[in-house]
Amino acid sequence: MGEITDYVHRVQYYETDKMGITHHSNYIRWMEEARVDFLAKAGWDYGRLEEMGIISAVVNVTCDYKRPTAFSDDVTIRASIVEFRGFSLKFAYVMTGADGVTVCTGTTSHAFLNADGRPVNLKRTNPELFEAFGKLVAEESDR
Amino acid sequence: MGEITDYVHRVQYYETDKMGITHHSNYIRWMEEARVDFLAKAGWDYGRLEEMGIISAVVNVTCDYKRPTAFSDDVTIRASIVEFRGFSLKFAYVMTGADGVTVCTGTTSHAFLNADGRPVNLKRTNPELFEAFGKLVAEESDR
Amino acid sequence: MGEITDYVHRVQYYETDKMGITHHSNYIRWMEEARVDFLAKAGWDYGRLEEMGIISAVVNVTCDYKRPTAFSDDVTIRASIVEFRGFSLKFAYVMTGADGVTVCTGTTSHAFLNADGRPVNLKRTNPELFEAFGKLVAEESDR
Amino acid sequence: MGEITDYVHRVQYYETDKMGITHHSNYIRWMEEARVDFLAKAGWDYGRLEEMGIISAVVNVTCDYKRPTAFSDDVTIRASIVEFRGFSLKFAYVMTGADGVTVCTGTTSHAFLNADGRPVNLKRTNPELFEAFGKLVAEESDR
Repeated sequence: MGEITDYVHRVQYYETDKMGITHHSNYIRWMEEARVDFLAKAGWDYGRLEEMGIISAVVNVTCDYKRPTAFSDDVTIRASIVEFRGFSLKFAYVMTGADGVTVCTGTTSHAFLNADGRPVNLKRTNPELFEAFGKLVAEESDR
Repeated sequence: MGEITDYVHRVQYYETDKMGITHHSNYIRWMEEARVDFLAKAGWDYGRLEEMGIISAVVNVTCDYKRPTAFSDDVTIRASIVEFRGFSLKFAYVMTGADGVTVCTGTTSHAFLNADGRPVNLKRTNPELFEAFGKLVAEESDR
Repeated sequence: MGEITDYVHRVQYYETDKMGITHHSNYIRWMEEARVDFLAKAGWDYGRLEEMGIISAVVNVTCDYKRPTAFSDDVTIRASIVEFRGFSLKFAYVMTGADGVTVCTGTTSHAFLNADGRPVNLKRTNPELFEAFGKLVAEESDR
Repeated sequence: MGEITDYVHRVQYYETDKMGITHHSNYIRWMEEARVDFLAKAGWDYGRLEEMGIISAVVNVTCDYKRPTAFSDDVTIRASIVEFRGFSLKFAYVMTGADGVTVCTGTTSHAFLNADGRPVNLKRTNPELFEAFGKLVAEESDR
């Protein structure tokens, strides 16, 4: 899946806190940025999913802070789908600083909902998307 | 209008920046907090306006930063309606620190829109609300 | 530990997202709000810890989203220390809506650092604080 | 000054609000992003100014919201220095959507402070920077 390039976020001044480093809450937002970017690059941008009536709700987030990052740092984020069942999806993220050292790792878990907010199984409701996500996990395990 | 009490915002850690003070963008958010609180105390909470099909879009913001504030400071915000025409509204804000010194002043201007995003004149569409806002400006000038 | 009252956060308009509910990243910030409030009520406000030269760095965050919350909801957050070793601390959070239903649970883990950013063991460096945190965990298990 | 290219910000999901559009407070943050980017491209990145002991405090912000922007929009921001006196600086910003239509304009005013937080006149304290900023305004008026 070499064609899905990593996402880069430059740390903004407003993302720093009085400790002089990036506030920890921002990494959760960067995971979203990287996830949206990953899906768009895979051909499934948010607008397309929305048109299909698919909403993905975040049900869990985990984040391990390894090293601080600072204003104007370029943080490279590799997002990948590590688990996919028809009704849910799990992303993992590895964030590295300019020197290649891991600064943060995390995961987000998502449930698929329809417009009414009810859980759906993509296998039944959106077979094309089901197959696509399944392929993205498989490719990931080969990466 | 003594019954509409001032709003108090406590500065959060995540609102500070690497300069060690509150990041300037947060004051714009506090104006919104104070405005929502003011309208709710005046009997026009957001839900009620929404039910009436009234949306108010922010069309202008100004903010004068007088003195920095810091983590855990209690900032008192007095919001008031300083201008009202049937199709638009202007709020002014005075923010003071615990010592009573003004730390920030600002204004926000709002246009009334219907559900389709088109400008409406409350005088015609919502006479009760038109009268209420008119009264709030008058009371303000007496404060 | 009945004297440490729960923290209440009112959902702000700027915390909502286009799905019409609170954006998931904000719960991470609310955990910080509740933690800061908890420590202040326990007599260990941030300023006091800072004066003692103690910094606590967030090393891990987990968050389980149970139910969405919406603009102007009052979310009650019970923070508690669930683990304490001299060099680290773990908080757990239970967030409930106005109807008493749990909307979110989470944890944050913290490492104690000195001004140079090096890990410290409070048992050695700050025995008074070590004892206090130990007592807070014990009281918690009785709650 | 054709060599200072415009800055592009992609609207993030977490920047939207329940109205389905970008929350107005984010434009204030984008002005900062564009300003930081402008200064870096002009050879005066934040780190360099900091090393010189120069802090620039935001003293005023104005923002005119012309049209809403939405999730995943690319907003192009042209920042320019429109006023410079030795002790203060004023930036203007024009933000345009993908279709070239102006979505927002704004200004920020800044005071130069030394490490002690006292106002300084760059003409006296940092003649090289004084000259550089002067040149940037002049070039701007030719743009």
